[in-house]
Amino acid sequence: VKFQEKEKSVEQVLFARRASGLSTNATAGPSAAAISFDSGHAFPGILPDLTQVATAALSKYRAETLQYAPRPGLPELRSWIAEYMRADGVVNLSPEEVLVVNGAKHGLELVCRLLLDEGDSIVVTAPTYFTAIPIFKSFGVGFIEIPQDSEGLNVSELQHSLEDRKQAGKRLPKFIYDVPDFHNPTGLTMSRNRRETIIELAKDYGLFIVEDSPYRKVRFEGESQPSLKALDDSNNTVLTLGTFSKLMAPGLRVGWIAARRDLLARIVQLKSDGGSCPLTQRLIVEFCVTGQLDSHIRRVQETYRVHRDRMVDAVRRELPEAEFNVPHGGYYLWLTLPPDCDGDDLAKRAAQENVILVPGSKFFTSSGGRGVGQPSPKNHIRAAYSYASPDQIDEGVRRLARAYHSIP
Amino acid sequence: VKFQEKEKSVEQVLFARRASGLSTNATAGPSAAAISFDSGHAFPGILPDLTQVATAALSKYRAETLQYAPRPGLPELRSWIAEYMRADGVVNLSPEEVLVVNGAKHGLELVCRLLLDEGDSIVVTAPTYFTAIPIFKSFGVGFIEIPQDSEGLNVSELQHSLEDRKQAGKRLPKFIYDVPDFHNPTGLTMSRNRRETIIELAKDYGLFIVEDSPYRKVRFEGESQPSLKALDDSNNTVLTLGTFSKLMAPGLRVGWIAARRDLLARIVQLKSDGGSCPLTQRLIVEFCVTGQLDSHIRRVQETYRVHRDRMVDAVRRELPEAEFNVPHGGYYLWLTLPPDCDGDDLAKRAAQENVILVPGSKFFTSSGGRGVGQPSPKNHIRAAYSYASPDQIDEGVRRLARAYHSIP
Repeated sequence: VKFQEKEKSVEQVLFARRASGLSTNATAGPSAAAISFDSGHAFPGILPDLTQVATAALSKYRAETLQYAPRPGLPELRSWIAEYMRADGVVNLSPEEVLVVNGAKHGLELVCRLLLDEGDSIVVTAPTYFTAIPIFKSFGVGFIEIPQDSEGLNVSELQHSLEDRKQAGKRLPKFIYDVPDFHNPTGLTMSRNRRETIIELAKDYGLFIVEDSPYRKVRFEGESQPSLKALDDSNNTVLTLGTFSKLMAPGLRVGWIAARRDLLARIVQLKSDGGSCPLTQRLIVEFCVTGQLDSHIRRVQETYRVHRDRMVDAVRRELPEAEFNVPHGGYYLWLTLPPDCDGDDLAKRAAQENVILVPGSKFFTSSGGRGVGQPSPKNHIRAAYSYASPDQIDEGVRRLARAYHSIP
Repeated sequence: VKFQEKEKSVEQVLFARRASGLSTNATAGPSAAAISFDSGHAFPGILPDLTQVATAALSKYRAETLQYAPRPGLPELRSWIAEYMRADGVVNLSPEEVLVVNGAKHGLELVCRLLLDEGDSIVVTAPTYFTAIPIFKSFGVGFIEIPQDSEGLNVSELQHSLEDRKQAGKRLPKFIYDVPDFHNPTGLTMSRNRRETIIELAKDYGLFIVEDSPYRKVRFEGESQPSLKALDDSNNTVLTLGTFSKLMAPGLRVGWIAARRDLLARIVQLKSDGGSCPLTQRLIVEFCVTGQLDSHIRRVQETYRVHRDRMVDAVRRELPEAEFNVPHGGYYLWLTLPPDCDGDDLAKRAAQENVILVPGSKFFTSSGGRGVGQPSPKNHIRAAYSYASPDQIDEGVRRLARAYHSIP
């Protein structure tokens, strides 16, 4: 049985807590209810009004939206996504190179099912997206953890690691997994130079790159770097995971994989869900083709910039012991505390103060890139500014600081 | 790589054809457009009006329906499903024993991921649900095919087969997969006696039973037998797959698994899709709790009874060479043609006459229960009466008869 008999994932615990109403107790004041810095949930005030597009989807398009859908996705949605990615620099991407899936995590699982065998290894950043870790582990893979610096994944360390494996006659990893734009959890964006180098490296060693880029459009300032997919001239190396969760709303559960046709043809075979939901796909098509997405993305950017600024200011004011890079987009501050601070302990104390965060240890697969046998660094904590309101952010950071200062 | 490099599935070909408009060309007359007897698609005229519930779901419940959902499903939907199954005889089923999934096929895949290892075997009927076959094969299982008679799966043959394996020191299968109500493709319903016996047998040999019962409520006459889940007093043996595809609409992509808590706890870990879509779950809850489901199910039963009657009459009139049991529910006629008739050839000829059916050979995993090395029976074809209108059914059967009589 491939199932990993593991502790409940943090995500599950968080969902359970949220489902029980703990984090969303709107009747109690902000000083009483728990404040949620724990997840990539959307700010409730920014969820779009889809009632009009739903009425159209369920009347004019009823025979499509309530029937089984084509397995690869609605043709109009695949075309729209291909055009969206072409406009973002992925020249020549065709709708046939886009597969609609039930969110990016579903896409990641399908990619793993396609590419991985028991005993394989993959390259991840240290730290990496914590929800992806149990997905990878369920396929029995080993991890090659590569640290990041301000330019993103340290490509020369990766090169050394690959060369060492090759020299030692070890099997090379199957793919490199990274979040190059506003990385989760570190908020870092990979530099242009690193992007070009990592693609060359992947080509040289025959690896795929799985580019997971949910936050790419959630940019508050500065210019985007070309996506890895855009830089992959051969179109052979990069599989890109996209999602409407951050562009529109997480509840739609619609994402996509952009990849070579032959790979997608095999992934479709593994996608045994009877086609992704045509109703939510049609809601998205109608929202996008009527031009509502562009103005919504601007609202998303403006809203979360305000959230980020509030959290940056609050942390500088209330918890000056924490160091962090100011992210230019995305949902997260990655706080580095003094070396003797235990993030697990801090997260527990914060929960007692009614502010929920994910300790940094959850984002490391094993040794945190410090080498085999070394423990993961403990002095980090991730603070998401997406879900909480600006006032909750102020109050939540005050609580976090109180928790920190309660450590003996 | 677990992927099976196989021919395109029939389903995919059919979906591709439908997506291209071949089967749904509403502007051409019935004599010109292709008529679809090939799939379990819903009759378009019976898809419910969900515009009102969608407006509520996207306004009053917006913070729920557009946000990430709890992984096991919306609590209200799990409660509703538990009550629905309790009313159907599964006493004491609790909401915690229900997991919401993206349709029954997704549920089946998760059950396979939980229970199967490479090299395992499972028991299936011969013939069995053809869309399940590639899912099973993707897990590398072997098949023990057991024929059916008018009472359903031949349990004494199964007992002999299990005993033989045990005596020979072979590994026993992991589970028995069956569609006990209005079986796909045969339309047969398992007798009460067989149901009780198969549960005893499964317990004796330590096997699970996977009960896939999408058509249970699509009954035109007669009384239901207790579900296998209802007869499983210990609640240890049967995992039941349910779906709203036949109750409400396939496009919602919402189904469920009802099983022991410890099994569900492990399946939830494997469900890495960020929670099933809360919007479609809420549509269903609102539809059901406002009492619309009951009247809709009556419409479903009345509609498909008319479709079945039209097809039964048409086949008796146009193609008296075909034998079949008249199903008391479900979507399908399983036509048995004279022994020298090749169903694959007939399906091809029918397609040339613009009526689309699935040849019987697609429903057998290997030898069709005739023993190792024996070919599957070829003289069957499945005719679905769900999607086509009554007039199309008449015309489609005329075309099928023409195709049959064109065989030299």
